[in-house]
Amino acid sequence: MSTRPPESPASLLVVSAHAGDFVWRAGGAIALAAERGERATVVCLSYGERGESARAWREGRRLDEIKEIRRAEAENAAKALGAEVVFLDAGDYPLRETPELVDRLVRVYRDVAPSVVLTHTLADPYNGDHPAAARMALQARVLAQAIGYDAPGDPLGAPPVFCFEPHQPEMCEFRPDVLLDITSTFERKRAAMECLPAQQHMWDYYTDLARRRGVQLKRNAGPNLGLPHATMGEAYTRLYPQVTGALA
Amino acid sequence: MSTRPPESPASLLVVSAHAGDFVWRAGGAIALAAERGERATVVCLSYGERGESARAWREGRRLDEIKEIRRAEAENAAKALGAEVVFLDAGDYPLRETPELVDRLVRVYRDVAPSVVLTHTLADPYNGDHPAAARMALQARVLAQAIGYDAPGDPLGAPPVFCFEPHQPEMCEFRPDVLLDITSTFERKRAAMECLPAQQHMWDYYTDLARRRGVQLKRNAGPNLGLPHATMGEAYTRLYPQVTGALA
Amino acid sequence: MSTRPPESPASLLVVSAHAGDFVWRAGGAIALAAERGERATVVCLSYGERGESARAWREGRRLDEIKEIRRAEAENAAKALGAEVVFLDAGDYPLRETPELVDRLVRVYRDVAPSVVLTHTLADPYNGDHPAAARMALQARVLAQAIGYDAPGDPLGAPPVFCFEPHQPEMCEFRPDVLLDITSTFERKRAAMECLPAQQHMWDYYTDLARRRGVQLKRNAGPNLGLPHATMGEAYTRLYPQVTGALA
Amino acid sequence: MSTRPPESPASLLVVSAHAGDFVWRAGGAIALAAERGERATVVCLSYGERGESARAWREGRRLDEIKEIRRAEAENAAKALGAEVVFLDAGDYPLRETPELVDRLVRVYRDVAPSVVLTHTLADPYNGDHPAAARMALQARVLAQAIGYDAPGDPLGAPPVFCFEPHQPEMCEFRPDVLLDITSTFERKRAAMECLPAQQHMWDYYTDLARRRGVQLKRNAGPNLGLPHATMGEAYTRLYPQVTGALA
Amino acid sequence: MSTRPPESPASLLVVSAHAGDFVWRAGGAIALAAERGERATVVCLSYGERGESARAWREGRRLDEIKEIRRAEAENAAKALGAEVVFLDAGDYPLRETPELVDRLVRVYRDVAPSVVLTHTLADPYNGDHPAAARMALQARVLAQAIGYDAPGDPLGAPPVFCFEPHQPEMCEFRPDVLLDITSTFERKRAAMECLPAQQHMWDYYTDLARRRGVQLKRNAGPNLGLPHATMGEAYTRLYPQVTGALA
Amino acid sequence: MSTRPPESPASLLVVSAHAGDFVWRAGGAIALAAERGERATVVCLSYGERGESARAWREGRRLDEIKEIRRAEAENAAKALGAEVVFLDAGDYPLRETPELVDRLVRVYRDVAPSVVLTHTLADPYNGDHPAAARMALQARVLAQAIGYDAPGDPLGAPPVFCFEPHQPEMCEFRPDVLLDITSTFERKRAAMECLPAQQHMWDYYTDLARRRGVQLKRNAGPNLGLPHATMGEAYTRLYPQVTGALA
Repeated sequence: MSTRPPESPASLLVVSAHAGDFVWRAGGAIALAAERGERATVVCLSYGERGESARAWREGRRLDEIKEIRRAEAENAAKALGAEVVFLDAGDYPLRETPELVDRLVRVYRDVAPSVVLTHTLADPYNGDHPAAARMALQARVLAQAIGYDAPGDPLGAPPVFCFEPHQPEMCEFRPDVLLDITSTFERKRAAMECLPAQQHMWDYYTDLARRRGVQLKRNAGPNLGLPHATMGEAYTRLYPQVTGALA
Repeated sequence: MSTRPPESPASLLVVSAHAGDFVWRAGGAIALAAERGERATVVCLSYGERGESARAWREGRRLDEIKEIRRAEAENAAKALGAEVVFLDAGDYPLRETPELVDRLVRVYRDVAPSVVLTHTLADPYNGDHPAAARMALQARVLAQAIGYDAPGDPLGAPPVFCFEPHQPEMCEFRPDVLLDITSTFERKRAAMECLPAQQHMWDYYTDLARRRGVQLKRNAGPNLGLPHATMGEAYTRLYPQVTGALA
Repeated sequence: MSTRPPESPASLLVVSAHAGDFVWRAGGAIALAAERGERATVVCLSYGERGESARAWREGRRLDEIKEIRRAEAENAAKALGAEVVFLDAGDYPLRETPELVDRLVRVYRDVAPSVVLTHTLADPYNGDHPAAARMALQARVLAQAIGYDAPGDPLGAPPVFCFEPHQPEMCEFRPDVLLDITSTFERKRAAMECLPAQQHMWDYYTDLARRRGVQLKRNAGPNLGLPHATMGEAYTRLYPQVTGALA
Repeated sequence: MSTRPPESPASLLVVSAHAGDFVWRAGGAIALAAERGERATVVCLSYGERGESARAWREGRRLDEIKEIRRAEAENAAKALGAEVVFLDAGDYPLRETPELVDRLVRVYRDVAPSVVLTHTLADPYNGDHPAAARMALQARVLAQAIGYDAPGDPLGAPPVFCFEPHQPEMCEFRPDVLLDITSTFERKRAAMECLPAQQHMWDYYTDLARRRGVQLKRNAGPNLGLPHATMGEAYTRLYPQVTGALA
Repeated sequence: MSTRPPESPASLLVVSAHAGDFVWRAGGAIALAAERGERATVVCLSYGERGESARAWREGRRLDEIKEIRRAEAENAAKALGAEVVFLDAGDYPLRETPELVDRLVRVYRDVAPSVVLTHTLADPYNGDHPAAARMALQARVLAQAIGYDAPGDPLGAPPVFCFEPHQPEMCEFRPDVLLDITSTFERKRAAMECLPAQQHMWDYYTDLARRRGVQLKRNAGPNLGLPHATMGEAYTRLYPQVTGALA
Repeated sequence: MSTRPPESPASLLVVSAHAGDFVWRAGGAIALAAERGERATVVCLSYGERGESARAWREGRRLDEIKEIRRAEAENAAKALGAEVVFLDAGDYPLRETPELVDRLVRVYRDVAPSVVLTHTLADPYNGDHPAAARMALQARVLAQAIGYDAPGDPLGAPPVFCFEPHQPEMCEFRPDVLLDITSTFERKRAAMECLPAQQHMWDYYTDLARRRGVQLKRNAGPNLGLPHATMGEAYTRLYPQVTGALA
């Protein structure tokens, strides 16, 4: 049972605090959606220019240069995954929660009409921008549902929301509700990660993580399901009840 | 993506502490499985002869009479839903957790080879038999997975487990992870409930509950999905991560 | 043991995000207070003009019309319950938390000197205005206690705070700490609900809920207490320890 | 609103793992009930002969001597509080959960017909006997409610259950839901504590605790309530929803 | 294993919402650091002039007088403990979270380069300023770690953060992760408390608490460790994983 | 500050449900203790003969053969780590909690007099033997503390308890409280893992995990601490408050 009206096409919206987050944490899901021919849209609230560009700062780059570099990298990564990317350039460290930024997100929701939403977890003691992005993504989703909210487009339905995996999951109260099989698209995810050369140490870290989640996926699917040895996975939490016509 | 090997047929196993629990709490899911042509098996660990047969005791019935009445009612209800029913007659109030009873459940698992398992919640301060049944159902599921466990049949896979809704959900730490649309089978569920005449006050109570969960189902599915006004629902929690090939 | 000084009269304060919330969620408690001859004051932070007036928007009403309609409805409902109602017209969807709005609430606390406070839950993933209202209600209560806070009136005591039941309680971490018997005033609550014609589908929904909470109330009170079959209830959580002279 | 049928007298039942627990943790509540003329019954599942009699063991006492000493102390303490005391002599360290012991408790419930029940918390990483006692107290209460349970007496109603405060509350997930004013009976509690000479260091510890809970009680009651400076308190958690006719 | 680079000296930073908090809640830890010859810095975000100066308001003092009194008291207390104190005078009741105040804290972090941070708990239903201070202390710590954050000084390392004990710990979700032995410095803590004459009732309250936490410290250390009878303690929660070279 | 009396030597006790658990989950901690010249004792409650020997069963081995194989492997692994190993041969799948087995553990505690204890987590929905082992380890530790418990040896002190990391940590409510630097002993851990040839797929899995925990260790220690790139870690939770003389 789909939660999408028959006439409306599937559409994925990813709300990412910084320019790189969507690659490490949700690249597999994005590539899967693109492979299925669905529209996939990534919103980067900031470029991660202050908080996630340490190497560039150590190399003596200026703020505007860093933003430009990060933007180009994120565009390449999104392209590798098959997604569009929108930059709101709201600044990071801190990413400030403002009514104006939430309103811009409402307009994105109304425009994209997502059938599925991905964003950060609501807790992350290592990076305050991540929960700030998640709070705004969730608030905007609810506002976009109201016919009385003053923004163009039709009221949003109730797309399910999934939180992608943070860097230190247990410290962020992250518990995998869903293990997504990304084996078929992992090469595209790896290619997208390699579009971010300043964070090369992350390539292997997130490849290892995908393998680890893949092992758990096989364990939860059952050993006799015949999944390949090299199953790769991504983990998500689900914020609203799943609506379905069959338990499985 | 199914978690079931292609060659093995879908099969539903319901582990119920007392003879009536499966009707009120999971009747819709059982009828849906039967409608899809799947095998549906209910295990009643006891008849609920002491704890859930107050009227019969007040009428002066003897223990063996009460067990017979409850057994017949449960058989009728299972038939109305399209399920087989197995009675282990382990006694209730209290339902005692013993290695022998767990072993009998392991053998049921090995025989039924369920692709989905339903049981009680792990907390219920109003009825200790319910969590005892759930603990045994979960323990037996893990034991049945081990090739080294000494019981006939093949090792079990890793069927997902869903807990059905207790009478006072918030007091049992019950949070709906899944809202199941049972509109198409609600009439069968109502018919099954009416096989339990001693608990007539429950018929309307659980009809109201199905309507209430239906309203929430529509809310979580999105208003523009076009679900009918009279959508009926059942709520479940999911104990293991969902394994899937697509987020939805 | 009352937590109210002997000389000061009992007084109920309800802080409601939108114009209708207090009716569905706390109508019984308000009518009970009024029946006991106590002052009952409802503060509506907004009219719910954007987020809870879908029908009026679909009918093409203007913002100012909608606010007027909602205001009139809420006034009628409050009257039916025996309460005064104050409108702060702070806007909804989103209801913004501002120091100014909190300060207005502090002044209401100092004026009303409530002996009991009711408001929303602190979590509600379906409606951000509800927790925002609750946070402001709680913050203002603490500020009003400080003699050094610059507002007219005497410092507030420590009135207990109860959160009323949200629409999807389990998703809002709502656990009933208190089940209130509203049987004697349910007719007044129903009459108040009927003052809100645009949400007619809610009349039966909340009547069913009151019956459901009534069944649970009887279960928790004990079957031999002799409560009537048609006991109606409202559920609340309690945010601070109960202070008492006897356990019961 | 009382949860007790009008015809049945109030009656307090305290289920205590060891001979001394009821004094330190619930002495004030017991004395209050006795003062109100209610029956108060303490069940000591063991004498605490192995786990809570270190001094006697160091003095070289034999097991039977220690049990005798502890019994006499507990009888004196109960007398000082105005309560009856029953000893089940089930052994401690460990206190074993057995169907037979639970059955004996069911018979106590049916005999005492308590309107209020006090026992230990369900978690205590420092002493496994405490949660074992609580689990049995709760299981027996549910069994005693069933007309079909084979024991003399009438089925039990649904008396509220309060957990008294453990030695290291935060480590036992203890959160005060109720602060009981024991100022009027504190002298009796102190006298009962002094009936336990081997644990003299506890007298001041629990006097300090009563003062500390008293300070919190005043804070939660409100500063303008006029409670005396020397208010003494006991803290409890409540396991089932409070049933009431008025919020306060 | 220390988490501090060998070349950098140990340094303690305490972020306190009001002028007195650091004395009651962390005085022992501060005095211990000073005794070890470490730099200890206290930041008071406000003087507690509105919310924690009830006596002065009742005596008719003006706002500026009260701030001056509180400042002098806090300076004396800090001196008694061996710490520097910095006042940001950001106002209390409410203490407002602003980007500017967070930025000032970032600059303190960069200047002090703390190896350990102490602050309030993230929950406190009795005083909203406390969690506001904690949130800002945590946010500023993360921002100060980013080389791209525009403030003087070197990027901060990852100093561990400990939350000190609130007034009603269980209501603030406070669970002692660390029990600190302050026996050797308790006299200095008492002397610092006596620098706050307007809150004389707190002197004994926090002396009792130190004794209580000392008893628990001895219990958790083991009875055969030979700690003195009069062991005094302070309790803390730890927000990030402890990094160590040996389990102990 | 140590929690061990000066005269008594440090001693590590590991309580492991099956023969291999201690290697994957605590091998680094064991090797570190051995390197420091401390006694390290591993208790294997079972050989894991039924539940963790799938390959041997598929190869047609008999039960006694499998137990012998597993015993030899575990002895080799323990030797590689520098630990003694004790086998209680209590059976697995299920590992039954009995008073007799707990009593045997009490005697081990009294004999080993551990200053630190390691065991499984209290939750593990994938393997019921793990929490059963943890519950018995914790119960026996408390019983061994009582002078009145009838077993040889002196009463135990209060050694801290750490839970090692389960296979799917988030599903077992595992949150790293302690990150242990095992870089210096990782080679020994790897050698011990290679003593378990039937589970070769685990060698790399747990090497990857050690690297992952090492990355997190560096992140929590601070980037400027100068830890080597190839830091390896093990994660633990701590069940009782840490007792210390200095916050760090």
